[in-house]
Amino acid sequence: MTQPEGTDGRDSITDVGGLRVGHARVPGGGALSGTTVVLGPEGGVVAAVDVRGGGPGTRETDALDPRNVVQRIDAVVLTGGSAYGLDAAAGVMAWLEERHRGVRVGPDPSHVVPVVPAACVFDLGRGGDFSARPDAATGRAAVEAADASGDHARVETGAVGAGTGAVVGGLRGGVGTASTVLDSGITVGALVVVNAVGSAVDPAMGALYGSYFADGGPPSFPAPAVREAAARRLAEARASAAPPPLNTTLAVVATDAVLTRAQAQKVAGTAHDGIARALRPVHLMNDGDTVFALATGVRELPEAPGPLALNEILAAGADLVTRAIVRAVLAAPGGLRGPGGDFPSYRELYGSEPGP
Amino acid sequence: MTQPEGTDGRDSITDVGGLRVGHARVPGGGALSGTTVVLGPEGGVVAAVDVRGGGPGTRETDALDPRNVVQRIDAVVLTGGSAYGLDAAAGVMAWLEERHRGVRVGPDPSHVVPVVPAACVFDLGRGGDFSARPDAATGRAAVEAADASGDHARVETGAVGAGTGAVVGGLRGGVGTASTVLDSGITVGALVVVNAVGSAVDPAMGALYGSYFADGGPPSFPAPAVREAAARRLAEARASAAPPPLNTTLAVVATDAVLTRAQAQKVAGTAHDGIARALRPVHLMNDGDTVFALATGVRELPEAPGPLALNEILAAGADLVTRAIVRAVLAAPGGLRGPGGDFPSYRELYGSEPGP
Repeated sequence: MTQPEGTDGRDSITDVGGLRVGHARVPGGGALSGTTVVLGPEGGVVAAVDVRGGGPGTRETDALDPRNVVQRIDAVVLTGGSAYGLDAAAGVMAWLEERHRGVRVGPDPSHVVPVVPAACVFDLGRGGDFSARPDAATGRAAVEAADASGDHARVETGAVGAGTGAVVGGLRGGVGTASTVLDSGITVGALVVVNAVGSAVDPAMGALYGSYFADGGPPSFPAPAVREAAARRLAEARASAAPPPLNTTLAVVATDAVLTRAQAQKVAGTAHDGIARALRPVHLMNDGDTVFALATGVRELPEAPGPLALNEILAAGADLVTRAIVRAVLAAPGGLRGPGGDFPSYRELYGSEPGP
Repeated sequence: MTQPEGTDGRDSITDVGGLRVGHARVPGGGALSGTTVVLGPEGGVVAAVDVRGGGPGTRETDALDPRNVVQRIDAVVLTGGSAYGLDAAAGVMAWLEERHRGVRVGPDPSHVVPVVPAACVFDLGRGGDFSARPDAATGRAAVEAADASGDHARVETGAVGAGTGAVVGGLRGGVGTASTVLDSGITVGALVVVNAVGSAVDPAMGALYGSYFADGGPPSFPAPAVREAAARRLAEARASAAPPPLNTTLAVVATDAVLTRAQAQKVAGTAHDGIARALRPVHLMNDGDTVFALATGVRELPEAPGPLALNEILAAGADLVTRAIVRAVLAAPGGLRGPGGDFPSYRELYGSEPGP
């Protein structure tokens, strides 16, 4: 995929003009959790959601049903802390209210209700302290970081924000992002928090599943000795602690296209295909997999071929989610070892396979 | 995956005891279409559906919503002929009515309404005659073939039934099937009709995407010269006719487990992951991708680990759909060349790569 024009090609959701991303971490020694906020421009963005996991934790997702009243939203919250962490949205609401951003509900411009959809990943106790969770202060810190980041800012990936304590199939997970510019000139970007039950790694080959869809030729397969050592190490790590009872991959797919809310919902739905290609199995009863879709509405879809013009965005959204997951797994610098378990990083196990 | 015990290991949806499959073809020279019926045992099966494509053609799918009244169904129809072909369900209904099978609606045992969910693929004009479509007679022929096939019968695959005129990303598509027995002893099977917009083939490598998930080690990559020749041939073929305006992958995932209707719906949803892994892109606006899930209710789910016991079936359902798609593409004996277009088979282009 091509890099977005007019940017440094940072292959990030912030290549979609107007979107900013901020991370915040829960402070303290026993904490391994945090919150990530995707902040829209003044005036908000069209938004939708598709929840496909069997164990979701969400807030304000029903408001995004295209049949319901709220037309635009200002921010989306992805958070650690399981359902407790949804409180982070309160801090984002407060920050937006101070700026009179939200659904206007009274005569005074200050009379707003910001609708802040949120979804959580399970990382309770990952840092040792079961009660160390994101709260309103974490949400506020994340939205302030997003606001301060400027346009088209680089997005930090790996063990940050909602990905601070994320794990995936026994490995360290985290935050990843990717973007592309379509032939139509429309930019599409994705941001993911990878914290799945299933594996990102093809156990037979040691390659990341998502690398099979990288369009860059054959994935580089780790040598058999590396794979065997990795399998041993992973088995040891898995034996050291019970697997997390709940998991989740969260994604935000964003575009500068003009989309209806129904079209945005279709984008969110098809983006789950990108999760399926990168993680196996997925959408299980203990995955809360949730995808948000955002449209800033700057570029019209091509008139031809009519409703099929959405296809390019649908396909790109899924592909970008796959690539963002690969990049999230590769971004993990080292493993996560502590009271919450032993989760090696992909790079530790399989070496420095270059990402797509 | 292991083969089902107590069968010949025919790796087929009919390894789920009580299910029978029948195909019928629309007669006549200009016809390349047909119908496939999955027939349940007397008393019916629990059923659910998840429609994820943007251009679906379905009948009686709302009745399968777990909130609605119909508890069990007797048969599912997969059919060519686009929305016209949904008439095939009428023939299956008549056949069932004659046997007093269906939802009892009156004092007499003959007072039944058989609920026959159906979904279609687009193949109009594939054989030259736009009006040669499955009708009630085709449906009746397919259900009669299913009924006559006996228990655990081999399922014909490739260009049969609803897959008679199927194409996938410029190649010939068709019907495929697969099954497995889980550690719990529960059997899971899948049957697919592959007729997608997207590609089943990784264009960079010539391997089938689905083969990356085959658990059998590295896929065999066709030699560069083979890949180049295939790309040329495929480009020629695609240039010879407009691509089909609508497409669809249909699947039935079945198990002998005891599932609630809501659990069956979850199985149908996660099975779409298997389509995503084997076809790219998919779930586009002109794909009508639809998955039915059937449960014959013979084997209880393991009590532990509670609601997570469904995970094994969810994961297997997705994997089996992937494998059934691979087998459908490999089953196509030769290409499809005619008034409806030029669609080479995978084997023609890439040789006899063994399937998973």
